[in-house]
Amino acid sequence: MSGKNIIFLVLSLFIPVSLAAHYLEWGDLIVFGTACLAILPLAAWMGAATEEIAVVVGPTLGGLLNATFGNATELIIALVALKAGLVDVVKASITGSIIGNLLLVMGLAMFLGGLRHKEQKFQSVVARVNASSMNLAVIAILLPTAMRFGAQTVSQQTLQHLSLAVALVLIVVYALTLFFSMKTHAYLYEVGVAETVEEEHYSKPNIWLWAGVLLVCTILVALESEMLVASLEVATSQLGLTALFTGVILVPIVGNAAEHATAVTVAMKDKMDLSLSVAVGSSMQIALFVAPVLVLAGWVLGQPMDLNFNPFELVAVAVSVLIANSISSDGKSNWLEGVLLLAAYTVLGFAFYYLPVA
Amino acid sequence: MSGKNIIFLVLSLFIPVSLAAHYLEWGDLIVFGTACLAILPLAAWMGAATEEIAVVVGPTLGGLLNATFGNATELIIALVALKAGLVDVVKASITGSIIGNLLLVMGLAMFLGGLRHKEQKFQSVVARVNASSMNLAVIAILLPTAMRFGAQTVSQQTLQHLSLAVALVLIVVYALTLFFSMKTHAYLYEVGVAETVEEEHYSKPNIWLWAGVLLVCTILVALESEMLVASLEVATSQLGLTALFTGVILVPIVGNAAEHATAVTVAMKDKMDLSLSVAVGSSMQIALFVAPVLVLAGWVLGQPMDLNFNPFELVAVAVSVLIANSISSDGKSNWLEGVLLLAAYTVLGFAFYYLPVA
Amino acid sequence: MSGKNIIFLVLSLFIPVSLAAHYLEWGDLIVFGTACLAILPLAAWMGAATEEIAVVVGPTLGGLLNATFGNATELIIALVALKAGLVDVVKASITGSIIGNLLLVMGLAMFLGGLRHKEQKFQSVVARVNASSMNLAVIAILLPTAMRFGAQTVSQQTLQHLSLAVALVLIVVYALTLFFSMKTHAYLYEVGVAETVEEEHYSKPNIWLWAGVLLVCTILVALESEMLVASLEVATSQLGLTALFTGVILVPIVGNAAEHATAVTVAMKDKMDLSLSVAVGSSMQIALFVAPVLVLAGWVLGQPMDLNFNPFELVAVAVSVLIANSISSDGKSNWLEGVLLLAAYTVLGFAFYYLPVA
Repeated sequence: MSGKNIIFLVLSLFIPVSLAAHYLEWGDLIVFGTACLAILPLAAWMGAATEEIAVVVGPTLGGLLNATFGNATELIIALVALKAGLVDVVKASITGSIIGNLLLVMGLAMFLGGLRHKEQKFQSVVARVNASSMNLAVIAILLPTAMRFGAQTVSQQTLQHLSLAVALVLIVVYALTLFFSMKTHAYLYEVGVAETVEEEHYSKPNIWLWAGVLLVCTILVALESEMLVASLEVATSQLGLTALFTGVILVPIVGNAAEHATAVTVAMKDKMDLSLSVAVGSSMQIALFVAPVLVLAGWVLGQPMDLNFNPFELVAVAVSVLIANSISSDGKSNWLEGVLLLAAYTVLGFAFYYLPVA
Repeated sequence: MSGKNIIFLVLSLFIPVSLAAHYLEWGDLIVFGTACLAILPLAAWMGAATEEIAVVVGPTLGGLLNATFGNATELIIALVALKAGLVDVVKASITGSIIGNLLLVMGLAMFLGGLRHKEQKFQSVVARVNASSMNLAVIAILLPTAMRFGAQTVSQQTLQHLSLAVALVLIVVYALTLFFSMKTHAYLYEVGVAETVEEEHYSKPNIWLWAGVLLVCTILVALESEMLVASLEVATSQLGLTALFTGVILVPIVGNAAEHATAVTVAMKDKMDLSLSVAVGSSMQIALFVAPVLVLAGWVLGQPMDLNFNPFELVAVAVSVLIANSISSDGKSNWLEGVLLLAAYTVLGFAFYYLPVA
Repeated sequence: MSGKNIIFLVLSLFIPVSLAAHYLEWGDLIVFGTACLAILPLAAWMGAATEEIAVVVGPTLGGLLNATFGNATELIIALVALKAGLVDVVKASITGSIIGNLLLVMGLAMFLGGLRHKEQKFQSVVARVNASSMNLAVIAILLPTAMRFGAQTVSQQTLQHLSLAVALVLIVVYALTLFFSMKTHAYLYEVGVAETVEEEHYSKPNIWLWAGVLLVCTILVALESEMLVASLEVATSQLGLTALFTGVILVPIVGNAAEHATAVTVAMKDKMDLSLSVAVGSSMQIALFVAPVLVLAGWVLGQPMDLNFNPFELVAVAVSVLIANSISSDGKSNWLEGVLLLAAYTVLGFAFYYLPVA
């Protein structure tokens, strides 16, 4: 049993602990902390189950499954928070996921990978296509915020209309991206997939077993998310944190922990192409799929969520995208580049920590 | 006769129709619409005539002609609008032309080219030189706008002085760019020119005939522009459009239609180098030549035009330049990249549509 | 004796002249001008002495010396100005040094180098690593300024805390960068060093002689800086210049003159790798070492200096970094690219000249 699996097993003990903390009323801070920890192994198992099922159902349907469930944890937490009316936390968690994937995950992968390997190379076409899609998606979701620069007063209704229009465009683009990667240009993606599969599978997995795991984990994630969201406001204010900091830094670390673990693990095995695909691909899914789904869901749930972010979030995301592009454009990485990304994340974290509530 | 020529012949029927609409007072909306359509074939014929004459007079003078008349339609419409005092529309049409060339034209070229050809390559040195010139030109024309970030109140006179100084620097840079491309580094540009020429010419064209065509078309474009500008305000307000949207989206589509057609046509013939040269080169000419000429003309005409744009235009142009660079840096394109550019243009279009009047 | 050395000898006459101007009270304008000119040869000799000593003490300690004394002139002027309470001038000189190195120095190097050599190539890995470090450092020092976009009111204390936190992160990153370049990845930097050394040295330099030169020059630079700073405010207001323009344009030209001369000289000898290393490396040192040291020094000296710049400085630096990246990414340069960089610097200079005092 690998070290990673032992950690996840230990963390899974927090599932009953968090339930106890909730029902025995041990206080919001403990509920929040244990729910955060309990979600980590569940997210990892959901990811594993999705990949196993994807292998059995074949590349097309499997790819669709991966694309839809890839950010399932993130999406479930966000939907629960949205239903509870924490619109600001949900919006912050979108930009936080993008920043976290590009700086924290990529940074840790390059740093820890670089400690073992003097220079790591990556050249995947997939990473490039993802990067272009991500740039455009990120720009699109930030446009309503940028409108502030153009007019002093933009009505709430205008922002809502524009956000819905942007969300629809993004979902169409996402569907076309899937069509591109599974049908017209599937050959570009074959190397990456083969690499993943080869390592993990020696016998055909039992689809019903894994479907059961996926179902149970999804239900448990939703349950833990409910407790996390219910205790979030009291717990974070006890810790002296703003809603913005919680949404941008804390929630995405919990929601994306599974991708973090994968990206770092494969980077240490010198598979940087796969590592960057996970980090960049996850950012892209957040911007092209999760964000627009949340806008539409907010509209349906009666919790209107526009894409009007705090302008500093716009700056932070723009900066992260520029760095990610600059690093990925030379096709090589070393530990220092990882340090630079982590330093950028640290500095952004300080800024979000100190940023006063508007 | 090619399909393109048939379309232009049909569109040329709108020349008499627009004149009739104007003199018989069929209403501003009809005058505006027919004048827009009438300009399209005239612009195409002006472009064709310029290229024919350029072949006869030799590379140096021909290059100069192409460089000066390449955006003649755009320039004529803008000068007429400037004389009529529509300074905001003129300014918006400058940024709109840059955005339109980089996102709409490049996007359509990559999308339609990519539907026919799985992957299209381009590597021209010319495209790179143009891109660098364009980046710097774009930055220069946006600086007066960016000054707003540095000081709450910048006097109109300061902006006017700065805009004139920037305009003079840009015209000097433009002259040096022509000197570079025709004298010191002409060899870099030979491939592209040869490619164009080879396809179009089998016999030496009659220079007097084409000079006549150029003259007649220029007069007609100016005439149609007068009608377009005179009817613009009433027509667009009847359509519920702001001056900003009209200037950024509508006017550039009419003014740049000829380049659009060329860039898309050659992309479908898998000549992506030429296609991108047209799109990027046109943006560069707008920023390095058309914009400064308009600033100087405004000063002469007593319609002082500074380079103080709506800040959202700055965001939109910055975004377009970043995307164009990101796409052109990998030297390859496919239909999805075209979709992404078109999606970005669509989303920007939505934003300009919803942007309230300041 | 080379032409460069003759110029420096002539300029060194301004050392006694500036002292005379100061003690005989010839007026602030003359003191300021002569002190500026007197600093130029002193900075050049400090640079030469540092390099000579570095050769003797070996690569590790020598590298550390070069890294620490590389921007010594800049740092001394800034510390003197900081002690005198000219915090705004010091802050402006930080961004001005970055802009000046990336646009003015790189531009002059490419322009003058390009006049002699049709096309110049550069491909150094070092330049790339430096560029990534610089991007991140620049982003980090600009973050406190960017916080303004996120909140209308940020308290002075918050900015001070954030600036100190950022300064500490940057100094750690700087130390790691040195560790990277001298220990773990020293082989990447060997080519560049060999190239410099080879040209300059045929016999082992006398370390005590050069240490004496370094000491004397440092003392004289500090003395001239005192006079320069004492006369700065009156002199520049007599010239009609704002503190911002003085800090962004004038001070960095004086402080970085030695690097300017080196970068241009080696570019004319077609050693573009070395030339760009100097320009980009100097920017990186300013952002990673000089700026954080000044923040900490300001805290110690009781002249609290935060990293809250004029927002237009943020725009100017962002623009300069984008251009430098865009130019350096294709690995080639010609005289036109130099012109474009110089044009960008000229236009930024106009903007800073016209920018009203906030």
